[in-house]
Amino acid sequence: MKNLKAGIIGFGTVGTGVYKVLQSFKEIEIKKIAVKNINKKRNIEGFNQNLLTDNAEEIVNNPEIDVVVEVAGGINPAFDLLKTAIKNGKHIITANKELLAKKGEELFRLAKEKNVVILYEAAVAGGIPIIMPIKTILSANKITKIAAILNGTTNYILTKMHEQGLSYEVALKQAQELGYAETDPTGDVEGFDAAYKISVLSTISFNQRVSIDKIYREGITKIKPQDIKSAKELGYRIKLIAMGQVLENGKIDVRVHPMLVSKKHLLAKIDNATNSIMLTGYPVGDLIFTGAGAGAEPTASSVVGDILVLASELEASDKPLPQTICHHDKNAVQIEIGDTYNEYYISINASNNPGAIGIIGTICGRNNINISTIMQNGIKEDNTAEIVVITEISKESDIQKALKEMLESDCIKNIDNLLRVMN
Amino acid sequence: MKNLKAGIIGFGTVGTGVYKVLQSFKEIEIKKIAVKNINKKRNIEGFNQNLLTDNAEEIVNNPEIDVVVEVAGGINPAFDLLKTAIKNGKHIITANKELLAKKGEELFRLAKEKNVVILYEAAVAGGIPIIMPIKTILSANKITKIAAILNGTTNYILTKMHEQGLSYEVALKQAQELGYAETDPTGDVEGFDAAYKISVLSTISFNQRVSIDKIYREGITKIKPQDIKSAKELGYRIKLIAMGQVLENGKIDVRVHPMLVSKKHLLAKIDNATNSIMLTGYPVGDLIFTGAGAGAEPTASSVVGDILVLASELEASDKPLPQTICHHDKNAVQIEIGDTYNEYYISINASNNPGAIGIIGTICGRNNINISTIMQNGIKEDNTAEIVVITEISKESDIQKALKEMLESDCIKNIDNLLRVMN
Repeated sequence: MKNLKAGIIGFGTVGTGVYKVLQSFKEIEIKKIAVKNINKKRNIEGFNQNLLTDNAEEIVNNPEIDVVVEVAGGINPAFDLLKTAIKNGKHIITANKELLAKKGEELFRLAKEKNVVILYEAAVAGGIPIIMPIKTILSANKITKIAAILNGTTNYILTKMHEQGLSYEVALKQAQELGYAETDPTGDVEGFDAAYKISVLSTISFNQRVSIDKIYREGITKIKPQDIKSAKELGYRIKLIAMGQVLENGKIDVRVHPMLVSKKHLLAKIDNATNSIMLTGYPVGDLIFTGAGAGAEPTASSVVGDILVLASELEASDKPLPQTICHHDKNAVQIEIGDTYNEYYISINASNNPGAIGIIGTICGRNNINISTIMQNGIKEDNTAEIVVITEISKESDIQKALKEMLESDCIKNIDNLLRVMN
Repeated sequence: MKNLKAGIIGFGTVGTGVYKVLQSFKEIEIKKIAVKNINKKRNIEGFNQNLLTDNAEEIVNNPEIDVVVEVAGGINPAFDLLKTAIKNGKHIITANKELLAKKGEELFRLAKEKNVVILYEAAVAGGIPIIMPIKTILSANKITKIAAILNGTTNYILTKMHEQGLSYEVALKQAQELGYAETDPTGDVEGFDAAYKISVLSTISFNQRVSIDKIYREGITKIKPQDIKSAKELGYRIKLIAMGQVLENGKIDVRVHPMLVSKKHLLAKIDNATNSIMLTGYPVGDLIFTGAGAGAEPTASSVVGDILVLASELEASDKPLPQTICHHDKNAVQIEIGDTYNEYYISINASNNPGAIGIIGTICGRNNINISTIMQNGIKEDNTAEIVVITEISKESDIQKALKEMLESDCIKNIDNLLRVMN
């Protein structure tokens, strides 16, 4: 392994984890750590306070530093700092999914020009090895599909809703109290975090740049206890699924939304804050990778793993291995949600009227939607009925049209929820 | 990627799969394929019969060939052929778990001397990426535990026994008819195949040579429908588990045997011929890798993946990367089964006598065994009772002593089965 000098930008949970794990690898010397507040008390045994700086420029412009480890997160100032570091010929290790999703193209292009690598195992699914395996040992494969649980916070909340029948609001509050969710949970519960990750993961899997701006995204805030209950009765669990697939016409379908996942599917069995990625390719078939998607230690495993791989490669050669370069020239052609095909779960509030099911059936029929299950789920106090429909594979735009027609019928009071189904 | 010339030894299911997948990678040219019968009809479109030879020496001694792909299996003649190839400076890709388990030490030593690499992703768990991730992206970890389903045949048989209540014999026969089990199933059902794989996997995981001769091994042939039924009632599934762990004293505990796996454990949910590996390390925590453990295409994914990694490395440098060398100087100190600690399932045939449970409890007590569950499972025609005991963590030698004492009691007719338990 080549001796490398590293600078770390960011010294929160992950940065501290990386610092601690690196203490066992004397080949990697930490030269500087950039923090916001240099005077903050840090409870790390034997820590040399002189490593700290509040000026990250001292890292990215330091000629002694070979590799910059960015674990600060966010676009600013990380983007400018990493550009400077790359221009100065430094290799980059980052856990910053948002930065890669939004600015990855520019960073990877610049890195290719400057003959440095950007490694980012920690940006997707924390400790789970997925990016490096796709680039190396799985490189004989044409990967055509990913379906994954990439956000631990929402999986924790959904697990509690399933296990304890909690409402979304109560489960969120518990998750916040236990530190699984942030005070402002938007990034997690509205699916932004999962969308960043699936854009990075599908880009490397499908070998073309998937744009974050064209990823359809829906969070878990509208899931009701009633949906969880109906899902259970029908043999499903509700999960926030990040998915990507290459269609037969070569177009790409990437999205994040809650799904009813058949309880027979291994992803339905992933509980609490665990992450899991199912990947389908030829010739390998289906693979599932499961583990901790966040946390100081699992994330440090990936960050330090990337540093050690780089050190190993640089011992053999000054130029980075072709397999670790990941600039993609081709932009994916991404389809709109309306053009996707799915099975659907529709929860409908209708008059308690013997004609309701007939109307639903008729509207579905004339919109090319085959119903596989229809179930009346009890009568409410206002004498309306809760009707749940599961469809066969249908086009999203047909479903949207049918829902609109249903709402125009006197008999249908409301579409309480529309979720997609994975069997 | 560097252009490489490859010779393939063995052209059965896996060899044919490798040949087909390599057609998409023009950088890898197949120079020769060694087969037993050169005249056998091969149904491969556009196949050039001139590639075949029945003399594998033409591959291992061919100065044009850079890499030898060995997918023939067995010790002879693979061992001598690969030694010759290594001495001639060729890199090796092999799927041969038996060869690595029995002769790995000599091969890896020779490869190190000759500055060539031996890659063997396909030797453990077919298409699942595990060896390369452990050597690269997980290399920051100290791996302390592996628990895995590494044999698809036995997992298929046990799944059918669980799902359909079949006897071992009937389930085996069905597996043979469907091609999941061989005519002579010994290598699978007696745990040899899983033992080869866990020796290879634990060697690379624990960074010390684990000897196949010291791996305790027990197959699935003694599992009875009654055991499956009791396991189900108690919330378990029976799986053939290959496990390895580093104990606190630094000694190594590696073994293959059936276990009752708690149905909450993800390994309990792996059905049919699927393989799954759970790996525990610091800092990563628990990771689980699941996928196809056999078959032409998944295995070809790993074989060709190794070839492409090698080609990528050799483009950057003539010397192999340090991370791909895997000779281990240190021999593991492996403990005997008697010195292991486990929870146990004991199935006891006793007189239908109110004192039986008392006797079992007394014998367990004086041998330091705490019972966590004891359950009488119906009375047989001969007026004996089937009693099932689940113990807390106990030492295997204490268990063996207790079983001996039980058999000396008039009241205990037989110990029908002893299995270990994983919660």
